[in-house]
Amino acid sequence: MKKVAVIMGSDSDLPVMQKTFGALEEYGIPYEAHIYSAHRTPNEVSEFAEKAYENGFGVIIAGAGMSAALAGVIAAHTTLPVIGIPLKSAALEGVDALLSTVMMPSGIPVASVAIDGAKNAAYLAARILALSDEDLMKKIQADKDKQRDGVLKKDAKLQETIRERQNG
Amino acid sequence: MKKVAVIMGSDSDLPVMQKTFGALEEYGIPYEAHIYSAHRTPNEVSEFAEKAYENGFGVIIAGAGMSAALAGVIAAHTTLPVIGIPLKSAALEGVDALLSTVMMPSGIPVASVAIDGAKNAAYLAARILALSDEDLMKKIQADKDKQRDGVLKKDAKLQETIRERQNG
Amino acid sequence: MKKVAVIMGSDSDLPVMQKTFGALEEYGIPYEAHIYSAHRTPNEVSEFAEKAYENGFGVIIAGAGMSAALAGVIAAHTTLPVIGIPLKSAALEGVDALLSTVMMPSGIPVASVAIDGAKNAAYLAARILALSDEDLMKKIQADKDKQRDGVLKKDAKLQETIRERQNG
Amino acid sequence: MKKVAVIMGSDSDLPVMQKTFGALEEYGIPYEAHIYSAHRTPNEVSEFAEKAYENGFGVIIAGAGMSAALAGVIAAHTTLPVIGIPLKSAALEGVDALLSTVMMPSGIPVASVAIDGAKNAAYLAARILALSDEDLMKKIQADKDKQRDGVLKKDAKLQETIRERQNG
Amino acid sequence: MKKVAVIMGSDSDLPVMQKTFGALEEYGIPYEAHIYSAHRTPNEVSEFAEKAYENGFGVIIAGAGMSAALAGVIAAHTTLPVIGIPLKSAALEGVDALLSTVMMPSGIPVASVAIDGAKNAAYLAARILALSDEDLMKKIQADKDKQRDGVLKKDAKLQETIRERQNG
Amino acid sequence: MKKVAVIMGSDSDLPVMQKTFGALEEYGIPYEAHIYSAHRTPNEVSEFAEKAYENGFGVIIAGAGMSAALAGVIAAHTTLPVIGIPLKSAALEGVDALLSTVMMPSGIPVASVAIDGAKNAAYLAARILALSDEDLMKKIQADKDKQRDGVLKKDAKLQETIRERQNG
Amino acid sequence: MKKVAVIMGSDSDLPVMQKTFGALEEYGIPYEAHIYSAHRTPNEVSEFAEKAYENGFGVIIAGAGMSAALAGVIAAHTTLPVIGIPLKSAALEGVDALLSTVMMPSGIPVASVAIDGAKNAAYLAARILALSDEDLMKKIQADKDKQRDGVLKKDAKLQETIRERQNG
Amino acid sequence: MKKVAVIMGSDSDLPVMQKTFGALEEYGIPYEAHIYSAHRTPNEVSEFAEKAYENGFGVIIAGAGMSAALAGVIAAHTTLPVIGIPLKSAALEGVDALLSTVMMPSGIPVASVAIDGAKNAAYLAARILALSDEDLMKKIQADKDKQRDGVLKKDAKLQETIRERQNG
Repeated sequence: MKKVAVIMGSDSDLPVMQKTFGALEEYGIPYEAHIYSAHRTPNEVSEFAEKAYENGFGVIIAGAGMSAALAGVIAAHTTLPVIGIPLKSAALEGVDALLSTVMMPSGIPVASVAIDGAKNAAYLAARILALSDEDLMKKIQADKDKQRDGVLKKDAKLQETIRERQNG
Repeated sequence: MKKVAVIMGSDSDLPVMQKTFGALEEYGIPYEAHIYSAHRTPNEVSEFAEKAYENGFGVIIAGAGMSAALAGVIAAHTTLPVIGIPLKSAALEGVDALLSTVMMPSGIPVASVAIDGAKNAAYLAARILALSDEDLMKKIQADKDKQRDGVLKKDAKLQETIRERQNG
Repeated sequence: MKKVAVIMGSDSDLPVMQKTFGALEEYGIPYEAHIYSAHRTPNEVSEFAEKAYENGFGVIIAGAGMSAALAGVIAAHTTLPVIGIPLKSAALEGVDALLSTVMMPSGIPVASVAIDGAKNAAYLAARILALSDEDLMKKIQADKDKQRDGVLKKDAKLQETIRERQNG
Repeated sequence: MKKVAVIMGSDSDLPVMQKTFGALEEYGIPYEAHIYSAHRTPNEVSEFAEKAYENGFGVIIAGAGMSAALAGVIAAHTTLPVIGIPLKSAALEGVDALLSTVMMPSGIPVASVAIDGAKNAAYLAARILALSDEDLMKKIQADKDKQRDGVLKKDAKLQETIRERQNG
Repeated sequence: MKKVAVIMGSDSDLPVMQKTFGALEEYGIPYEAHIYSAHRTPNEVSEFAEKAYENGFGVIIAGAGMSAALAGVIAAHTTLPVIGIPLKSAALEGVDALLSTVMMPSGIPVASVAIDGAKNAAYLAARILALSDEDLMKKIQADKDKQRDGVLKKDAKLQETIRERQNG
Repeated sequence: MKKVAVIMGSDSDLPVMQKTFGALEEYGIPYEAHIYSAHRTPNEVSEFAEKAYENGFGVIIAGAGMSAALAGVIAAHTTLPVIGIPLKSAALEGVDALLSTVMMPSGIPVASVAIDGAKNAAYLAARILALSDEDLMKKIQADKDKQRDGVLKKDAKLQETIRERQNG
Repeated sequence: MKKVAVIMGSDSDLPVMQKTFGALEEYGIPYEAHIYSAHRTPNEVSEFAEKAYENGFGVIIAGAGMSAALAGVIAAHTTLPVIGIPLKSAALEGVDALLSTVMMPSGIPVASVAIDGAKNAAYLAARILALSDEDLMKKIQADKDKQRDGVLKKDAKLQETIRERQNG
Repeated sequence: MKKVAVIMGSDSDLPVMQKTFGALEEYGIPYEAHIYSAHRTPNEVSEFAEKAYENGFGVIIAGAGMSAALAGVIAAHTTLPVIGIPLKSAALEGVDALLSTVMMPSGIPVASVAIDGAKNAAYLAARILALSDEDLMKKIQADKDKQRDGVLKKDAKLQETIRERQNG
């Protein structure tokens, strides 16, 4: 199976970004992770991106805050699908990172997920890789079923709470 | 090759959404298109999404404006990767559609592109399908090279303009 | 009397959403509540909405955060009036949920209340049901009078504070 | 049947607000309309609202732009359900009117529809009145079906366009 | 001297609004204060505003949060200058109150100060009343001079800090 | 009677700002106007502001776009009440000018009106000057009555339109 | 004298960006211009930036729209001061480009000017270069004086207009 | 070497603004700092700015919150390059200060850095001064290299964490 690369611009992004690790492991998807900054280590970013396809990667996930150039710059140096995670930082509630990540000019696409949406980035990568891996597609379906069951169990519990409240 | 589905919420979205058609044809990617609304034809949307995988689709592109529920609802009914295009409508400069498309809750990912970013949605679909189609990957690389050449030709033309300006 | 349905997308919405319970009980309005997600349990949402009218419901209240598709999707599957509560979540101060809830396309209306406006959603449901229930209408008037008295009592208390302050 | 009142703050609001007239007529719902401003004719607004219930109104629709106090002030003077339409004016893309209309404090609910969402305001009023009028509820269902058919016809037409495009 | 009225929509606004009291007392300006809500006690608001001029008031300060109709409604019922203070509440960082307060339609002006700008509202009232009270104008000038001195003292202290830092 | 000063940052602001002239003339209020820029002619701005009180001015109206420092800088150099008009320019729908005008720090108040709210700035100046001019106060009341009549005439006309529509 | 480089992401940016040319010529500052895109020609961008210092450039001006990574990426590859011009494009009024340009992470500074502020970018470059060129500094002062005179001439013209208006 | 001036509008800005001190000291750049407010000590601001060039300053850094007029007003009184730091205060996440700082009208440029971007303001000043100081330019390059090494060390550490995680 092709690997997923998880790139983040700073080690301060780890608390959010490491949620991708758990989600990828859940699906048994091999991954590598790097702290590479589009602004502080631009050459490492472009070199990594340029060789990602031949190095066996299938999807690159990039998370950055503020003027979040990382996902776009990676997309500029690869033909692989790139998923951008806009990260919330000290000001502006993550709007800066969201617009920097999603408003890509025509020709160089980035797939943006929600602000701090690290888990969904991993799930999206899984959906992409599952196109050529039927077992993975089944795992995703099973996980969706489990999510559904989780919601329904919480609903069942709510029914009890309501019953007590209304009878109580 | 797997097909791409292009779904839009209204026929008024066609002028923007049909840019996906040209881009997909450019890469020789088979596609189908539908006008299905998450709010006016919800059953058609869920039925389409639920059978999309077995019907040979690999990626679903969904474009909608205002409270753009379409991409998220489709993602809820499939395990395929779903690309959302937030469309600008009469008010709010497309911010409503952008936030409705991109701010998906954990578990059901949508890959959002820019406001009115129809072409990039198609290019992103191509990058996804190219993971299991080396020829397509080469076409994407060739297209990137062509884009680069296009920019450099425009730069060369600018050099002339500047030269005339500075000498003239 | 027709019942009110209170639907929320996640059990994390309960702290805000349960304010509807108290307000409905205050008016003696029967209600049911469910945790159903437009993205994680889409079929439960559409089935519930489609049968809500024949199951004796008069109003459906739906609260969700982020890309808040819930109220709109419910409105798509029923002819009952649907009240949407946009819920504030981790980023963007609730703007995402507000726009997703209120910016519905023509044809499928949702009645949006304020961000986290759970109580007002219940009061709005009461005003709607009171159209065919004169006693309920009187209760609403009595409650409005009580609210008014509450404000005036606080004003009276402020007069004392000011008097003490000015007299030293 | 109870009547619907349509109140707007200025005659410059008529081009948008009169869309409510057509929609109400479509459903055979009796209505009255007034130009009353919360800021220029505050007494007319409060008098109208205070007598609306005894004068046979069931729902009040209020549309205003900028600092759109109209719907909230009406809701303060009645126990009827009040629907607010935020209107876009010269600046700010309607955001000012949206926030003024929807962000009501607890106790006095307003049901906000989208910016310039005049038609949906009328449709929402119809859904409310249909709770005690089975015929109206059937008309709403029929209209929803017609809307669905309209979308599907446009989809059928798109299939032709695509076929020509792909074969042509 | 004419009095200043300080009106607030809720007693929860007191912590911010009472800053007006201190500022008015500083200048020796007589004032009255009330908790009157445009939505919960609309009649008290309009009655107060209508009689404010004959009751010896010269300026009305009104502070409210969310859909802040208070200042505008007061301005609709008086010919006195009305100063609006948009108050920050649970969501939206006060943007809702700011736009509701400042975006008044032509004909009924409100003088808006900054979000939570209670002190400046009092200072603005003082500047207005000082037009017919030379002593007050001198106090304002003296206060401005004191403010200036305060800044310069802090600057002098900073010089020490810097000196220590650079020598230390 | 004290004069009103109308200052604008650029002659491109005249189309909006000259609406103050008409409104002031309507009330018979003497005024002077200047094009002085806080950024291009800062000394003229501060000199004018510093002498405005002794030169017989009672209120200063200042209109500027973008980073609208003008009203705040004038308020820094005078003890007169200063009214700021945020002007919409090429980008951002006037939000930049609104925030620059209204978000003044504590101590130096500016009375902000709506974006492009030139007329209301003049009306607000009139309300301020009328505190020591009973005739002017009566004119303002008369003008308010006229405004009210204007709305009611438009309402009467709407009644005809509706009647024709409903009978026609 | 060191040269100024003017880089823009697309030839569609020329109508705004060429305003830098005129302003630089006005001051007699030598410049070169290029169309290089951070996303479509990333290698040209980084190569240009890396050699800019040794190639005799003193300041780099970079203008781009949407996810405007250009200025930041250039700043990552040089130690020269980089001025960013956020350009308004089809959606969002330029807010996307403004945040992408200005919200740079610590360590790699970009000097942002206003949305579409091409002229000011050139003037800022001139102020920077003038630090080691007294003649240029004098030209800037002269130009400031001329600007001031321009405003005062327009003010004089306004005085005539007002006089006619008040006497006419 | 020319000095850098660091001006802030209030001593409450020191916790953010003093980050400039450390950064300037790091590069051995002489600096002075002042608390001068554009609104509370306007004359001190303009006097300082007007003499800054002859007093040996090369760059002026100005930080202010809310209606952040400081940087613009300083730029109006000098021909030196002025760097503005928009500071986040109690409301609006710093958007007010950002727009007030960056949206300068044509003719009077301000170089804005990010919200609370004090360090980058100092780094930008260093890049500007380094144009006539080769040693400083080398220090900046060395610092950039150090930053790069810092990121790469953190990346190396992440590799360990990942290895443990994947093996553990």
